[in-house]
Amino acid sequence: MGEVRALWFSDGSLWVIDQRLLPLEKKELNLKSVDQVAEAIRTLTVRGAPAIGVAAAYGMVLAERNDKFTPERASEILRSTRPTAHDLFAGVDHVLKAWKAGMDTLQAADEFKEKVVTECAEIGKHGAPLLKKNARVLTHCNAGALATVEWGSALAPIRVAHREGRTPFVWVDETRPLLQGSRLTAWELKEEGIAHAVIADNAAGYFMHNGEVDIVIVGADRITRSGDFANKIGTYEKAVLAKENSIPFFVAAPWSTFDANLRSGADIPIEERSGDEVLSFAAQRTSPLESKARNPAFDVTPSNYVTGFITPGGVFSPGKVSEVIDKLLK
Amino acid sequence: MGEVRALWFSDGSLWVIDQRLLPLEKKELNLKSVDQVAEAIRTLTVRGAPAIGVAAAYGMVLAERNDKFTPERASEILRSTRPTAHDLFAGVDHVLKAWKAGMDTLQAADEFKEKVVTECAEIGKHGAPLLKKNARVLTHCNAGALATVEWGSALAPIRVAHREGRTPFVWVDETRPLLQGSRLTAWELKEEGIAHAVIADNAAGYFMHNGEVDIVIVGADRITRSGDFANKIGTYEKAVLAKENSIPFFVAAPWSTFDANLRSGADIPIEERSGDEVLSFAAQRTSPLESKARNPAFDVTPSNYVTGFITPGGVFSPGKVSEVIDKLLK
Repeated sequence: MGEVRALWFSDGSLWVIDQRLLPLEKKELNLKSVDQVAEAIRTLTVRGAPAIGVAAAYGMVLAERNDKFTPERASEILRSTRPTAHDLFAGVDHVLKAWKAGMDTLQAADEFKEKVVTECAEIGKHGAPLLKKNARVLTHCNAGALATVEWGSALAPIRVAHREGRTPFVWVDETRPLLQGSRLTAWELKEEGIAHAVIADNAAGYFMHNGEVDIVIVGADRITRSGDFANKIGTYEKAVLAKENSIPFFVAAPWSTFDANLRSGADIPIEERSGDEVLSFAAQRTSPLESKARNPAFDVTPSNYVTGFITPGGVFSPGKVSEVIDKLLK
Repeated sequence: MGEVRALWFSDGSLWVIDQRLLPLEKKELNLKSVDQVAEAIRTLTVRGAPAIGVAAAYGMVLAERNDKFTPERASEILRSTRPTAHDLFAGVDHVLKAWKAGMDTLQAADEFKEKVVTECAEIGKHGAPLLKKNARVLTHCNAGALATVEWGSALAPIRVAHREGRTPFVWVDETRPLLQGSRLTAWELKEEGIAHAVIADNAAGYFMHNGEVDIVIVGADRITRSGDFANKIGTYEKAVLAKENSIPFFVAAPWSTFDANLRSGADIPIEERSGDEVLSFAAQRTSPLESKARNPAFDVTPSNYVTGFITPGGVFSPGKVSEVIDKLLK
């Protein structure tokens, strides 16, 4: 088991680590209604595609048990929180199906969670061999335990390599505007004693060009049949830079991130968040009051920049994604 | 004349706008000794390659008049402040030569400043025709009046196009870690009423890939004979992304930025600043206390990513730089 856990269901309610406060404060929040879960997802109190999928699954349980909502209303509330991550919809659908069939929703949500955790452990096993001894890995945003309940997606292979004594080193993109890298990824790595350095997102290309990055591994919010995928804003930049510098670029994700219904990246809805996230920092305004901002929260990286997808079923090239989806997800 | 002025010499001392406090506060500082000027350069109170060249030129004047230092000691103090920008050394050398020849140092410093200002105005004239009507220009860091005394280098063509009524729009990379984009470039554009949007550095690639960027213009800290150049960290990333998306990428600089003695980018010394600039923000720690950072302040962009250099003498391809240096700078 990983040492960090993003959320858990206990005594009839959902507990989540408030990811807005890390790394300076580790606070657990107790959520008792579907609206509280929806709000936690919307405000990024709980974030990361697989983790919000699991949170939404438990949100369905709370909607049934505590709110006495209809399955339709419950799923509508959760689906409307954030548009990009596929896992959110996978988590809702998994419990919705059980609910409508008159089965135990908590058991269904637990199943969904266990599946994600097990799959992330598998991602770690399949991905670790990609890291040579002392590998210098660059990652973007947080695709760790906080984003996936346990283990992580992009961080899982790094965790496994670390436990095998192969001493990986991690370049942590700070990941503006919300600093999921410097706040969350650095915190997880620190908790496990994995060597790392935080860098401005602007510096990733510098270290790649200087030959100081051996491999890039990121997570994903949605992977389409073509191998195009959505992930945190800036991922596309790192992918282009990796290719330009002949550095392998891998995407790690559990099955809930794969969207069998989307053909290509152009079909993925991209969330645009408030410009205030860019114009201010920790409640201090950093831009002129008259200035506006644009703040897309995700970008789409075309499949031609991807070396491979690290999945619970092994490592696949982008050209294999559609086949894998048909074989394993249908 | 541009509407913003970074520094001026008056009543026997140097006045500078404290660029650390913008955009929330506009404060003028009065510097009366070479040590004060050196400290202002080191702390980025005054920054931007051409502007620190001019500040250093006036620092030499103060060293002679107020500190009664030798020319050698004065130039040594100023040269040791920051290693990357060529203009710093050009400014020191210009006044040093006059000083040693027994000429008026203030007149020499004024000459150097006037030359930079005039050259930036010329950059504006030569660069403006590159912007079609309603051009959407992406810029990185601050290469405006604050960085060059008046007009700016990268911002000069935008200012001219704006005054000609061709309504340019500017994508402002916020430019972590010190936010020269969101703090300084946004402030200059706001002062002149030029339309703009601040974006996270991570989002530049997104807007390029979406077809929303027509041209990229940046400044430079040092340009070598090969056309390789140093500029604020992240410039290399934007250059690679521009090329990948077939977007013209221009570098605007006065002659003081060109280094006739350097053959290629590999020879440029890159300043690495304190990791605290990355790990904290406005005195608030954002990373775990145990985490370390790497913080190169500049990167080198190879000439093959550059469409052209916008200079006081016109627009040149990278292959012409060495010839232009021999013709105009020797």
